[in-house]
Amino acid sequence: MRIIVTNCNTTREMTGEIVRGARAAAAPGTTVTGLTPAWGPASAEGWLDSYLSAAAVLDTLRTYDGPAYDAVVLAGFGEHGREGVRELVDVPVVDITEAAAHLACLLGRRYGVVTTLDRARGQIEDSLETAGVARNCAVVVGTGLGVLDLADDPGRTESAFLTAAERARDAGAEVLVLGCAGMTGLQRAVREKLGLPVVDGVAAAVKLAESLATLGLTTSRAGSYGTPLPKVRLWGRSSGEPERGAQGRQT
Amino acid sequence: MRIIVTNCNTTREMTGEIVRGARAAAAPGTTVTGLTPAWGPASAEGWLDSYLSAAAVLDTLRTYDGPAYDAVVLAGFGEHGREGVRELVDVPVVDITEAAAHLACLLGRRYGVVTTLDRARGQIEDSLETAGVARNCAVVVGTGLGVLDLADDPGRTESAFLTAAERARDAGAEVLVLGCAGMTGLQRAVREKLGLPVVDGVAAAVKLAESLATLGLTTSRAGSYGTPLPKVRLWGRSSGEPERGAQGRQT
Amino acid sequence: MRIIVTNCNTTREMTGEIVRGARAAAAPGTTVTGLTPAWGPASAEGWLDSYLSAAAVLDTLRTYDGPAYDAVVLAGFGEHGREGVRELVDVPVVDITEAAAHLACLLGRRYGVVTTLDRARGQIEDSLETAGVARNCAVVVGTGLGVLDLADDPGRTESAFLTAAERARDAGAEVLVLGCAGMTGLQRAVREKLGLPVVDGVAAAVKLAESLATLGLTTSRAGSYGTPLPKVRLWGRSSGEPERGAQGRQT
Amino acid sequence: MRIIVTNCNTTREMTGEIVRGARAAAAPGTTVTGLTPAWGPASAEGWLDSYLSAAAVLDTLRTYDGPAYDAVVLAGFGEHGREGVRELVDVPVVDITEAAAHLACLLGRRYGVVTTLDRARGQIEDSLETAGVARNCAVVVGTGLGVLDLADDPGRTESAFLTAAERARDAGAEVLVLGCAGMTGLQRAVREKLGLPVVDGVAAAVKLAESLATLGLTTSRAGSYGTPLPKVRLWGRSSGEPERGAQGRQT
Amino acid sequence: MRIIVTNCNTTREMTGEIVRGARAAAAPGTTVTGLTPAWGPASAEGWLDSYLSAAAVLDTLRTYDGPAYDAVVLAGFGEHGREGVRELVDVPVVDITEAAAHLACLLGRRYGVVTTLDRARGQIEDSLETAGVARNCAVVVGTGLGVLDLADDPGRTESAFLTAAERARDAGAEVLVLGCAGMTGLQRAVREKLGLPVVDGVAAAVKLAESLATLGLTTSRAGSYGTPLPKVRLWGRSSGEPERGAQGRQT
Amino acid sequence: MRIIVTNCNTTREMTGEIVRGARAAAAPGTTVTGLTPAWGPASAEGWLDSYLSAAAVLDTLRTYDGPAYDAVVLAGFGEHGREGVRELVDVPVVDITEAAAHLACLLGRRYGVVTTLDRARGQIEDSLETAGVARNCAVVVGTGLGVLDLADDPGRTESAFLTAAERARDAGAEVLVLGCAGMTGLQRAVREKLGLPVVDGVAAAVKLAESLATLGLTTSRAGSYGTPLPKVRLWGRSSGEPERGAQGRQT
Repeated sequence: MRIIVTNCNTTREMTGEIVRGARAAAAPGTTVTGLTPAWGPASAEGWLDSYLSAAAVLDTLRTYDGPAYDAVVLAGFGEHGREGVRELVDVPVVDITEAAAHLACLLGRRYGVVTTLDRARGQIEDSLETAGVARNCAVVVGTGLGVLDLADDPGRTESAFLTAAERARDAGAEVLVLGCAGMTGLQRAVREKLGLPVVDGVAAAVKLAESLATLGLTTSRAGSYGTPLPKVRLWGRSSGEPERGAQGRQT
Repeated sequence: MRIIVTNCNTTREMTGEIVRGARAAAAPGTTVTGLTPAWGPASAEGWLDSYLSAAAVLDTLRTYDGPAYDAVVLAGFGEHGREGVRELVDVPVVDITEAAAHLACLLGRRYGVVTTLDRARGQIEDSLETAGVARNCAVVVGTGLGVLDLADDPGRTESAFLTAAERARDAGAEVLVLGCAGMTGLQRAVREKLGLPVVDGVAAAVKLAESLATLGLTTSRAGSYGTPLPKVRLWGRSSGEPERGAQGRQT
Repeated sequence: MRIIVTNCNTTREMTGEIVRGARAAAAPGTTVTGLTPAWGPASAEGWLDSYLSAAAVLDTLRTYDGPAYDAVVLAGFGEHGREGVRELVDVPVVDITEAAAHLACLLGRRYGVVTTLDRARGQIEDSLETAGVARNCAVVVGTGLGVLDLADDPGRTESAFLTAAERARDAGAEVLVLGCAGMTGLQRAVREKLGLPVVDGVAAAVKLAESLATLGLTTSRAGSYGTPLPKVRLWGRSSGEPERGAQGRQT
Repeated sequence: MRIIVTNCNTTREMTGEIVRGARAAAAPGTTVTGLTPAWGPASAEGWLDSYLSAAAVLDTLRTYDGPAYDAVVLAGFGEHGREGVRELVDVPVVDITEAAAHLACLLGRRYGVVTTLDRARGQIEDSLETAGVARNCAVVVGTGLGVLDLADDPGRTESAFLTAAERARDAGAEVLVLGCAGMTGLQRAVREKLGLPVVDGVAAAVKLAESLATLGLTTSRAGSYGTPLPKVRLWGRSSGEPERGAQGRQT
Repeated sequence: MRIIVTNCNTTREMTGEIVRGARAAAAPGTTVTGLTPAWGPASAEGWLDSYLSAAAVLDTLRTYDGPAYDAVVLAGFGEHGREGVRELVDVPVVDITEAAAHLACLLGRRYGVVTTLDRARGQIEDSLETAGVARNCAVVVGTGLGVLDLADDPGRTESAFLTAAERARDAGAEVLVLGCAGMTGLQRAVREKLGLPVVDGVAAAVKLAESLATLGLTTSRAGSYGTPLPKVRLWGRSSGEPERGAQGRQT
Repeated sequence: MRIIVTNCNTTREMTGEIVRGARAAAAPGTTVTGLTPAWGPASAEGWLDSYLSAAAVLDTLRTYDGPAYDAVVLAGFGEHGREGVRELVDVPVVDITEAAAHLACLLGRRYGVVTTLDRARGQIEDSLETAGVARNCAVVVGTGLGVLDLADDPGRTESAFLTAAERARDAGAEVLVLGCAGMTGLQRAVREKLGLPVVDGVAAAVKLAESLATLGLTTSRAGSYGTPLPKVRLWGRSSGEPERGAQGRQT
């Protein structure tokens, strides 16, 4: 089985880190292929970044011409795009935000999310809500660290994470979710110090993607997630030839 | 006062129609400037289109270099992007989806939305939910007509709208919302036949944008909608020079 | 355009203050007429006052015989009556509670209300809930000052408001709402000190009323807000001749 | 124990009917005293009527000078006022709307309300919501009959009620609530034909009022329902001498 | 009228205490019969205990062969089983959890529950939610004391209860609920010190059970709570002869 | 890896069927061990059965003395007990009800459950609600067939399922969930005829259990799901020696 894991930003180091996390979680027979968008934000921190990222990720998958794959994992925590990818591809699509929440619901009555900047909280709350798993989310807490700062000083990152995690626990969280793909790796240290299970979205998404693919399940085409309609679409200001659908009409 | 009205797709005829609707609603001293994204989908019908549209609209506003403006109206019903625009610009931002719902709430206990294709319903429901105005929405109903089909046969459009509107009324709607920018103009005919007030999102958004601008109110920078952080962002696959923020670092 | 603004209590000084606020917000062509109920409470602080006020405001509008008007603004924050006025008059009706919330939703992801006494909080919460705009309300906070105390010591009022506003911000509010018609005027000072947009319900309601009237929209008669049925109604214990509807029957 | 039962309208025949229903439900040692407001609407059908009724009922209780009583039952289904009465009196207050819902919740997983005119549905829904018992309400259905028409033709009333009740059952109701004080008496016939328990609000409220009084429980004065503040209040247009509180100040 | 009150655990002293509380609340003509399960947990503290208790209570009622009774009170706060008992018996069934909440809703806008161990909070929250009365619950607070520790040191129990009750009040509770059958008796002392009404679930349930029985109301058989289907059921590992329904088939 | 799969009833044929379904879904290295409770109901249909089943399943796991296992799957759709098992065992616990819903949320915007008897609907709704995954459940529909009737006439079962599934689709379901362990096997046929993805709870739970075990995640001991406290517990009427905890005290 091949799983495509898409980074939500253009930072290749981060794709590498995400792919390592995904491989650590994957079953023996699973091949993980990481994709870095050719355009978009260097990191996704806020709504503007998130919408830019969503289009770039869609474009990356749309123009992918590598080996066939069995599932897609979207590795941007709280970022937009998952419903669009569900329309685009014929294999199951799992976003790390929802994935972490799904597993967390199985481990305790209430979970909490620890994320990077406070400004990311709103996106995460909305993403959990529309994914249908917000009910048991006790709180989303920020660490005050930016996405690209996470790797700079591991000690500071762990300390900031622990402080935020304690606030989540005091708000009723019995399980923690790592609210950023760049946090993959923190969970073991943190679990030991806080005694709470810690769910990493990338690992969770890989297991859910494998589960769906193994069971032969994929996105429903009835209702919301139909195949994109054929039409002219221009993917970026000077992106040359427009995509043209079968019945597309020129603007 | 100048209000920028952004079409969510690249179809200029539709921008023209939207601008006409906006001007009809605007106060005497208000200038309406329509913008058509240079890229994006020819029409936004589904999540993939919506995310592509969101990035294109953000890019359009980011690179706008016309006269100063006092407010932005986003004229894509149920489309993504509004929170990103709130981060980007310093003036009030009103999306036609939420605008129509806000006014509809003032006119009856429950409102219903009549939109184009059934697949658009989910996006609209989510958009109303996160905008905070879904509580009194009785139902979102599709007409079965695509965005660009609306103008083809006005009689068929009106008839399909009436049928859908009756379903909305039977589901408890006391007020109707036109769930597509391209429906502007239908409301008078429909109001007469059904006896329900009909709110057009473009007109509603223009009045709300004027209201906020007149009162000197604009988006809060506290919490969710901070200014976008400086960083490298690439707006499209081959979009030449990357934007570089003051403290941006190259990937 | 003429807008009727009704005070919810019998204190004429407060009507004057409200009318000044309304005129400051009104468009050039809008005439604002203030009405003070001939009966009711000297100030509305609590449910008993609120219900007494609702009946008195309805009676005031029912017996109004001045020039024709285009919209009604109900200037009692959190007070009852708006649905009854919607039944009574044929023009749009906007209550300052809902009006402030509608505009606040456009300015941030969550808003908070700062009101007078703590006992007013429940009414406000219920009013926002039934108006359909409670979803994004982070909190309603009291200042501990009564309605008629607000004007006594402006310094104390501002200080109490700031303290309460900080509590609202800490609870997640990105936008503040002035939770009492008598607070009109505080917003500028407060906005500067806290850096949050502050919405005044009277100003918000005037703009929304103008918006609806300009767009030719008024309350739906379908479903909830039908015209009051003709019947005998006695408006107060010794109010002489009963109103008699066309098919009214004597008790 | 003495229970005051207040009619919400000025129609004395209806007070009589309500009192008969209340007495049939009361315990042997309970005395039921019916009160008819001296002013207000002949029947409460809609929001305007409901707010007028709320003030009139408050005035009726405020000026009551009969023997001491142990509890108040408010016999207007879906009508306003209960929170104001909770402020006013020192004994427990039970509204028939909430009372019926409380008992209905104990008898099935979902209950339905059958009321008079469709326009009453909104008030009932809001009343159940703020009372905290709407969660298990499957539906509120109208019979199309006005309050004062109920007694005109018992056969038609029963037939209309049965039709509406079947709709409620089909919507998931396992228990029915009689949504109008004037329906007292219908429940036995209906229970037999439909096989569903039928809860009458007046009877339910009497039992709940007795329960609270027997247990020595009364309305909390902490938070929402403090004693009305002393101030000048005028109860109706020409109601002579204003009420003056201890520290009341003249307008 | 005879009311059966079932303890949820096997501790007879606790049954005695519960029965004393029930009798104190019962009307003159009501006979209270206490039942102690022959099996189950010595005290119910947690989900495993609660499910064990539910089966044991059902078995106790299933095999009860005493005098006929008119209602059942289930005296385990937050414990499972009530829906099963509603299927089993033909008389009204009232659980003390829901009963306390129903009465508390009538006494203030928000109520709080003070219970024993923190681990019991989740069960109580779920129980209130499914009973349909969670909307106005401000908070569920633990005292840190186990069920069987409550009687050990009355001073410590009262002190722990007061501390927890203050937290509930600060979270918005205007009324308190005693969240354990073993707390019966605390309410008077606590009400005096905190000035909040305190509802005891056992007393509340007795009054509600009497109310339903007096009004001739019992559980609906439509939909959820049908009579248990005839089939082979074994009540415990070595419970000898299986129950066999009329059309039961042997496994 | 070894996964224990517990049937919720005493019918061994059904355990066999469930185990076959579980094995079909399991990864190559996973051993599935089926357990049939020694007591309890022959089938779980209704709340009484469900609570009896919960205690029996807990007893079965409590007294299990086979080889060590890595996860538990509870194979009773809509049945009680999962939280108690989470307290009891130290490995992850997945209930087929929640498992199916978790995967269904990843496949469409709304899912529907098709179950056996209508009376099972309430339990399923409550189970989904407290598991935190009810938000995107469009509807729970009954087929009218009892649990043990499913196997009697496969044609009738498939036909009843299809009819119910169409109702679910019309109510907005884009994905179907098989709402009974005994339905395992239906999904392929149904998926082909209706074109909707069909999730089988047993398969879903096996994959989720494997996922959690692989990731080293298990139930949080903080807050709700602490280890059962040591105390005397009697598991059934004549179950001989009571279990005695370390500090257990004899009743």
